[in-house]
Amino acid sequence: MSTPGALMAAETAEQPQVWRRLRAESGPDGASGLHRAAGQIRSRAPRFVALVARGTSDHAALYAKYLVEIRLGLPAGLVSPSTMTAYGARPDLRDVLVLAVSQSGGSPDLLRTVQVAGAQGALTVAVTNDAASPLASAAHAHVDVLAGPERAVAATKTYTAQMLTLHRLLDAVGGGDGASSDPLPDLGDAVLARDGEVAVLAQRYRFAQRMITTGRGYSYPTAREAALKLMETAYVSAQAFSGADLQHGPLALIEPQVPVLAIVSEGAGGEAMAPVLASLAERDADVLRIGSPGPGLGIELPGGVDDELSPLLEILPLQQLARHVALDRGADPDAPRGLHKITATL
Amino acid sequence: MSTPGALMAAETAEQPQVWRRLRAESGPDGASGLHRAAGQIRSRAPRFVALVARGTSDHAALYAKYLVEIRLGLPAGLVSPSTMTAYGARPDLRDVLVLAVSQSGGSPDLLRTVQVAGAQGALTVAVTNDAASPLASAAHAHVDVLAGPERAVAATKTYTAQMLTLHRLLDAVGGGDGASSDPLPDLGDAVLARDGEVAVLAQRYRFAQRMITTGRGYSYPTAREAALKLMETAYVSAQAFSGADLQHGPLALIEPQVPVLAIVSEGAGGEAMAPVLASLAERDADVLRIGSPGPGLGIELPGGVDDELSPLLEILPLQQLARHVALDRGADPDAPRGLHKITATL
Repeated sequence: MSTPGALMAAETAEQPQVWRRLRAESGPDGASGLHRAAGQIRSRAPRFVALVARGTSDHAALYAKYLVEIRLGLPAGLVSPSTMTAYGARPDLRDVLVLAVSQSGGSPDLLRTVQVAGAQGALTVAVTNDAASPLASAAHAHVDVLAGPERAVAATKTYTAQMLTLHRLLDAVGGGDGASSDPLPDLGDAVLARDGEVAVLAQRYRFAQRMITTGRGYSYPTAREAALKLMETAYVSAQAFSGADLQHGPLALIEPQVPVLAIVSEGAGGEAMAPVLASLAERDADVLRIGSPGPGLGIELPGGVDDELSPLLEILPLQQLARHVALDRGADPDAPRGLHKITATL
Repeated sequence: MSTPGALMAAETAEQPQVWRRLRAESGPDGASGLHRAAGQIRSRAPRFVALVARGTSDHAALYAKYLVEIRLGLPAGLVSPSTMTAYGARPDLRDVLVLAVSQSGGSPDLLRTVQVAGAQGALTVAVTNDAASPLASAAHAHVDVLAGPERAVAATKTYTAQMLTLHRLLDAVGGGDGASSDPLPDLGDAVLARDGEVAVLAQRYRFAQRMITTGRGYSYPTAREAALKLMETAYVSAQAFSGADLQHGPLALIEPQVPVLAIVSEGAGGEAMAPVLASLAERDADVLRIGSPGPGLGIELPGGVDDELSPLLEILPLQQLARHVALDRGADPDAPRGLHKITATL
């Protein structure tokens, strides 16, 4: 029996090292297979990108959706696997790139979706942490996120490894050289070194029954993933809203007893949070700001990072926060009740 | 000062009448403009459908996404308006149909998205409840959902009117005659007549702080919309999960003190809920089943309805439930705290 949360702590801390490995292995002869996959995508010149994923990987896919729309200028959508599995849909997928994102590469519904998509004319690319997985074999190309074995049930290092892989893959498709992520590993180490500061902050949430997370644009996936970590490790009823959606109905939920975690990074997404923060202030919400400096309680992250890459740093203190809140409540974040590492849905 | 919830009750009850009107007005000379819009879509033969919406309308758009993927066999995605507004993305949208869904037709971010999409080569179709709205003017075609003025802040009749409009529109694009929805208005009246039964059930949730809603496929939008109604009218922290996603991390949240509303209609989506219901039973979850008959507590809906159309009936008792829970808690569902009918986000 290991110390509760030891696996999650170790894997959280390992992330910058994983990013270094990924960066080293994504060239023409690199073990990730990224270079080749990027070439295949470029030569097929897709008109539309469909992403398919579940759980944490779905948040990495959502991040990639923003990259595809903003950077590649292609419309993109998250596929509901049930349309092809449960309903037997056989869409016309010529000119479509299907990107399947999965930690294990073993989910039967993703596998089936990739098989059907390939038969329907799509170029299929799997992004997984296991080159020997069924999904890796079923897709036309596989990109390995090279995160090494992930033993904690709550995904941490595979999440940021997926995001960095997707960023580099789509950057390469667009003709970029991936240099924008050069400073990332060192910045990641600096952010992670403040675990003690996060532990102190976590105490504030010891008795919070509900929490709300929010962000816009590239930071919206961060809000989603932070909520999932809080749910699965600390059993907090955490709800994520895009800043825009929060201003519709869910604003009625905001009250001082429901803490809000707001992701506000430099760049357009963070700027678009200004009216959301104003609405929260009007309602006397208890807000923790993660990202750029601002009034009130906050976890400040290093500035000067390309806003496309901010999500890799933003999630780090939130992974730490979820672990500390879980431990404070006597839960073991390495062994959430009722969860398994691979989820089988068809 | 009117009776609390009177507006929401009246507009909920009005839905079958709205559906009759819509059905009567969607022919070649009908006031909805549906027939003409369907013709424009058919003649452009889009290869991909992008949907854009916010709040309740986003759930109608999600419903339409399933219809597009399953019925029309086209890949579809929900657009994040921020990519074109906050980030200034200018995607290549030739061969793309952009369907904007909005009650008011007045949201500035949807308007901007439709303008940009049109300039980028998309065929744009607006589905709104106001033919004189900016969105209706900005799109190449407008389809009026003809729900009449909606005065309650919580949308009810415009939601099902949007769904029926989208169903008929996409059915017409696919060459259908819309006959499958013939029985719907009478069935809706029968379901709504059981408001007293729902009022009794609502008492069970008087002190629930959190609720979880879940469904798969066509019923997933119902789960999303039911959660939003509970949040905005009764201030319940309600979270919606697709059945498949629930079996990932969020399953850790399930405990007997967190009631679950499970939408289980006839058809593939309902059948795919079987393993989800089994997982919930294993965790001693308190489940209310909405749809087809089954063991335990339930609201049974009429059988024999095409599973594409079940969502129109499923949401009716859930709108009633949200209203009753709100009233039981002393809240006025017609005037949720802090909400306005049109939400301006850019």
